[in-house]
Amino acid sequence: MEARVSVIMGSVSDYPIMEEAIKFLEEMDIQYECNALSAHRTPELVMDYATQAKHRGVKVIIAGAGGAAHLPGIIAAYTSIPVIGVPIKSSNSIDGWDSVLSILQMPSGIPVATVALNGARNAAILATQIMATDNETLYEKLTAFKNAMKHKVIEANNKLQAK
Amino acid sequence: MEARVSVIMGSVSDYPIMEEAIKFLEEMDIQYECNALSAHRTPELVMDYATQAKHRGVKVIIAGAGGAAHLPGIIAAYTSIPVIGVPIKSSNSIDGWDSVLSILQMPSGIPVATVALNGARNAAILATQIMATDNETLYEKLTAFKNAMKHKVIEANNKLQAK
Amino acid sequence: MEARVSVIMGSVSDYPIMEEAIKFLEEMDIQYECNALSAHRTPELVMDYATQAKHRGVKVIIAGAGGAAHLPGIIAAYTSIPVIGVPIKSSNSIDGWDSVLSILQMPSGIPVATVALNGARNAAILATQIMATDNETLYEKLTAFKNAMKHKVIEANNKLQAK
Amino acid sequence: MEARVSVIMGSVSDYPIMEEAIKFLEEMDIQYECNALSAHRTPELVMDYATQAKHRGVKVIIAGAGGAAHLPGIIAAYTSIPVIGVPIKSSNSIDGWDSVLSILQMPSGIPVATVALNGARNAAILATQIMATDNETLYEKLTAFKNAMKHKVIEANNKLQAK
Amino acid sequence: MEARVSVIMGSVSDYPIMEEAIKFLEEMDIQYECNALSAHRTPELVMDYATQAKHRGVKVIIAGAGGAAHLPGIIAAYTSIPVIGVPIKSSNSIDGWDSVLSILQMPSGIPVATVALNGARNAAILATQIMATDNETLYEKLTAFKNAMKHKVIEANNKLQAK
Amino acid sequence: MEARVSVIMGSVSDYPIMEEAIKFLEEMDIQYECNALSAHRTPELVMDYATQAKHRGVKVIIAGAGGAAHLPGIIAAYTSIPVIGVPIKSSNSIDGWDSVLSILQMPSGIPVATVALNGARNAAILATQIMATDNETLYEKLTAFKNAMKHKVIEANNKLQAK
Amino acid sequence: MEARVSVIMGSVSDYPIMEEAIKFLEEMDIQYECNALSAHRTPELVMDYATQAKHRGVKVIIAGAGGAAHLPGIIAAYTSIPVIGVPIKSSNSIDGWDSVLSILQMPSGIPVATVALNGARNAAILATQIMATDNETLYEKLTAFKNAMKHKVIEANNKLQAK
Amino acid sequence: MEARVSVIMGSVSDYPIMEEAIKFLEEMDIQYECNALSAHRTPELVMDYATQAKHRGVKVIIAGAGGAAHLPGIIAAYTSIPVIGVPIKSSNSIDGWDSVLSILQMPSGIPVATVALNGARNAAILATQIMATDNETLYEKLTAFKNAMKHKVIEANNKLQAK
Repeated sequence: MEARVSVIMGSVSDYPIMEEAIKFLEEMDIQYECNALSAHRTPELVMDYATQAKHRGVKVIIAGAGGAAHLPGIIAAYTSIPVIGVPIKSSNSIDGWDSVLSILQMPSGIPVATVALNGARNAAILATQIMATDNETLYEKLTAFKNAMKHKVIEANNKLQAK
Repeated sequence: MEARVSVIMGSVSDYPIMEEAIKFLEEMDIQYECNALSAHRTPELVMDYATQAKHRGVKVIIAGAGGAAHLPGIIAAYTSIPVIGVPIKSSNSIDGWDSVLSILQMPSGIPVATVALNGARNAAILATQIMATDNETLYEKLTAFKNAMKHKVIEANNKLQAK
Repeated sequence: MEARVSVIMGSVSDYPIMEEAIKFLEEMDIQYECNALSAHRTPELVMDYATQAKHRGVKVIIAGAGGAAHLPGIIAAYTSIPVIGVPIKSSNSIDGWDSVLSILQMPSGIPVATVALNGARNAAILATQIMATDNETLYEKLTAFKNAMKHKVIEANNKLQAK
Repeated sequence: MEARVSVIMGSVSDYPIMEEAIKFLEEMDIQYECNALSAHRTPELVMDYATQAKHRGVKVIIAGAGGAAHLPGIIAAYTSIPVIGVPIKSSNSIDGWDSVLSILQMPSGIPVATVALNGARNAAILATQIMATDNETLYEKLTAFKNAMKHKVIEANNKLQAK
Repeated sequence: MEARVSVIMGSVSDYPIMEEAIKFLEEMDIQYECNALSAHRTPELVMDYATQAKHRGVKVIIAGAGGAAHLPGIIAAYTSIPVIGVPIKSSNSIDGWDSVLSILQMPSGIPVATVALNGARNAAILATQIMATDNETLYEKLTAFKNAMKHKVIEANNKLQAK
Repeated sequence: MEARVSVIMGSVSDYPIMEEAIKFLEEMDIQYECNALSAHRTPELVMDYATQAKHRGVKVIIAGAGGAAHLPGIIAAYTSIPVIGVPIKSSNSIDGWDSVLSILQMPSGIPVATVALNGARNAAILATQIMATDNETLYEKLTAFKNAMKHKVIEANNKLQAK
Repeated sequence: MEARVSVIMGSVSDYPIMEEAIKFLEEMDIQYECNALSAHRTPELVMDYATQAKHRGVKVIIAGAGGAAHLPGIIAAYTSIPVIGVPIKSSNSIDGWDSVLSILQMPSGIPVATVALNGARNAAILATQIMATDNETLYEKLTAFKNAMKHKVIEANNKLQAK
Repeated sequence: MEARVSVIMGSVSDYPIMEEAIKFLEEMDIQYECNALSAHRTPELVMDYATQAKHRGVKVIIAGAGGAAHLPGIIAAYTSIPVIGVPIKSSNSIDGWDSVLSILQMPSGIPVATVALNGARNAAILATQIMATDNETLYEKLTAFKNAMKHKVIEANNKLQAK
């Protein structure tokens, strides 16, 4: 079955962060593909990846990168599929500011849906929300997920009260 | 006909920025609704607005706010519809950093798709991309829009060469 | 006996920071309640918590949160009880700036009394100062506390001289 | 009749900002006093001002200052009355960051209740909330004020709909 | 005669800043070409531009861009010609920080020689220095330019003394 | 013999940083005194300390503090002896920015000579330079110190060459 | 009569800021010299200026510069006379942060006494304080100056009360 | 054989970072020299180093420094050889911002080609690119290096797919 969400990261070293996105997609039973390609080291591959995503049946792209993070923006340049950007605080990043600003501050015409620093799990939730806009079953799954979060908070709070 | 995109802002004073979103939705012939409600001054109205959005047929929400911008995040708390956040550089903002961080740095479980500071037009493009995930006609419109941008750049570049 | 100060935090993971507030309230013999509720995961509970605080006899609220910290501001939206906000430097925070700005930069009409990053103890001292505005016994306790701090500094300085 | 709220600022040049606090106190019919004294140019006067505030019947202090803003913190050193700090973006301030951090980041033991940059009006609302903790009439006034804000937002939103 | 330096900018709106580079190249009698192409709106053209630069005889590229400035980095991805990046403080930039960090913080393997915010003239001087590494005449021109700057400073200082 | 340099810090916990100042003064055989007094916890003692410094024969004051660091500025308010401020990166500091800005951005009329974050040794060197303005022996000691630094660099560089 | 304070700036364009230093020195009847020399455009002149300052009888140097402000640090490298650095917010500065950090963050061994952004007047007051360490007449002038500031504040406060 | 690239750093403590530059030059078989000299502790040596670099046959200079990093800029003041600056995050640096801004924000006329924080390897790649502008063999080596990077990414991506 074809992938509906495509997860891509600038380097395999980003995998421990981006894995959180994959885990959520698996929880939701959403088909995905996963790549580690660099906008700077493999620009042609990224171009191919992005221009062909639509034809591969991809509905949403999640792209994580650190430092001068150009990957999400360059993918967004080549496709009109929604691109969700995950700024990653990599080792030589200046506290994550470079990743955040390089992804967030896209010029008019080419948006990237940016989530929090290292927010790969939220990127996957957002991707699911996007796919749920025309899929009631998925929307119900998200509602159930929201309820589960709520109950976990309530339970933890009850325990706190009992302290 | 029911609105597919809901545009909301924290204050009517944000309208000159958020108007750019509305203009793009009109260019794309997308039905929209528009509200100015405050997460802090009218919290119950925002709750009602967000919890009922799904039933009103809203597919995507665009929420703009400045300063300690809680509007996008609070709406995202009440619905699983994708919420796009537009940080606004309002008069007493600290150079826009407060708006950006208040919208971007959402906790795990409740994403907001953040666009650039004052990036209302990009928010509308992103909303259209989201709606186009199951609407080929809309996807083609976006492709045409992308091509139009490209040709405008080429033309401007040609003029520059001729200088 | 009813709680006079209500301590709330966005997540039980904030407890090690917020515990400092509780310790001070206990030193001062002030009745308190303590909750961990999320503005994003349990928005209705936070609304209920805030709207009913006045009727529970709460005089001051201390709310701690990290990242895009909306908890203090949302509580302040629902009540006119003074809300003291404690920005918390949580794990994915951008050096604490997100928490600070999300709490501090509230719009006109809805103040949050913000204290230093991780400053839970100062939040409790401030809450005590607020309750002491109409309670001379409490004011005297605060004066004694201030004197004790002073003498501790003097003693430490004397030891330093003797080095 | 004695002043209940004391408004102080580091320089008369801060008056156009701090005037917003005074206006709100007048709206609420709260007695106030107003001074412009500098923690650096008139340190003894500030010490006298702070140590005698309690005896003058002052319940809450609002202190505004810009740059390396020491005024609120120094006053808090000399009294246990709650001190609300207003960071001011003065002419040679580095975008207001100096004022914000100098007021917010107080050491453990000596809190200052910090409000938004230039947030003098919010400081006065907070002062009123503090005084309302033992004054139901004042609390009702604040509730009415909150309602008035709400209705102004609703009206503005209605006009926006009618556009 | 073929261009030795290629000046490119992300948008014609960057021309007033980038013109300073062109003026210096003209002062030095260096052949140049000038384009305004966007990494996001015309990614294929930028790819063509960069991959063919070497064959056009280009020795150095000067690339200016604002916001999430990907142009210099993407060009550097496609060629081994030295790329000089000029961060531009455009209208919706966050004080220029986004442009600076998006250009400066390139990953290992793909450097961009970054100059100061809006430093187009310095970019051209650097390009000239690079071309002068194997061109003694050009090096002497740069030495003469340096001397001229020095004498201008001395003259201005003499005038200041005479005040 | 009376102290010529007075070293003061906001808390004994600052001693490991401030000790570097003391070590340099001892290397230079300069008499000093050392105190740990808080501008916020012991304001009257700081006032006494500062107003009497001149009569104790103190020529220069070195004041170190962290967070909302008011100690150097408040001392400068009470005396016309030069005050050197050492911003300290304490545990709850926001990366040291709060200490730096609280000390550096003093208002017109009341300067504090600020050195680098944690730069206690440089503070002592600066104090020595100030005392050397009318003491040729001390100036020669500083020249010898400068020469010693130079030779240490040269030696280390020679070793590096030999690698 | 020989100059006791030497004022230097990186460019004549810094004069409107640095003039404030000169005005204060004239108020205090202190002999001064004034130069505009660049650490980058006239490095040999700056070296000569700094190495000969001591022999010219200079007691204190005030050096103002903007952007990557190397002037104060380079002068401090060549002399043991105290160097006061004035960070200047010049036109292409990134909000003054570059000037502040380039001057403040000097390495161990080579201090620069940094004052506030654009704080030229405070630099001159500090220079006077330094010269007053062995000149009681000057110290009394500074005390009188401090008293005059105090009375100006008191007068302005009296006017404010009378409003 | 004479050195073509000169690597210099402000302190031998910077060697672990700068070593990355040396390793790359060795991979490319480029002759280099290496020094650790301080712009502040050995200013005359830095002047000699820079003014004589051209006569030693140096084509490109790589200069790394931390804190108020003046080394690259001061070298650029004395020569027209291209200077590549490497900002280093040293122990007392304020998160690297001081190093970055001190090197990047050079005034008009004196460029420094700045690379990423701790980006010594990129500095060496850039130096090689500069030397390759008139050396086809070297350009081919860089192309091969680029291809090797690409294949490493592809291989890693293949492994990721196989997971």
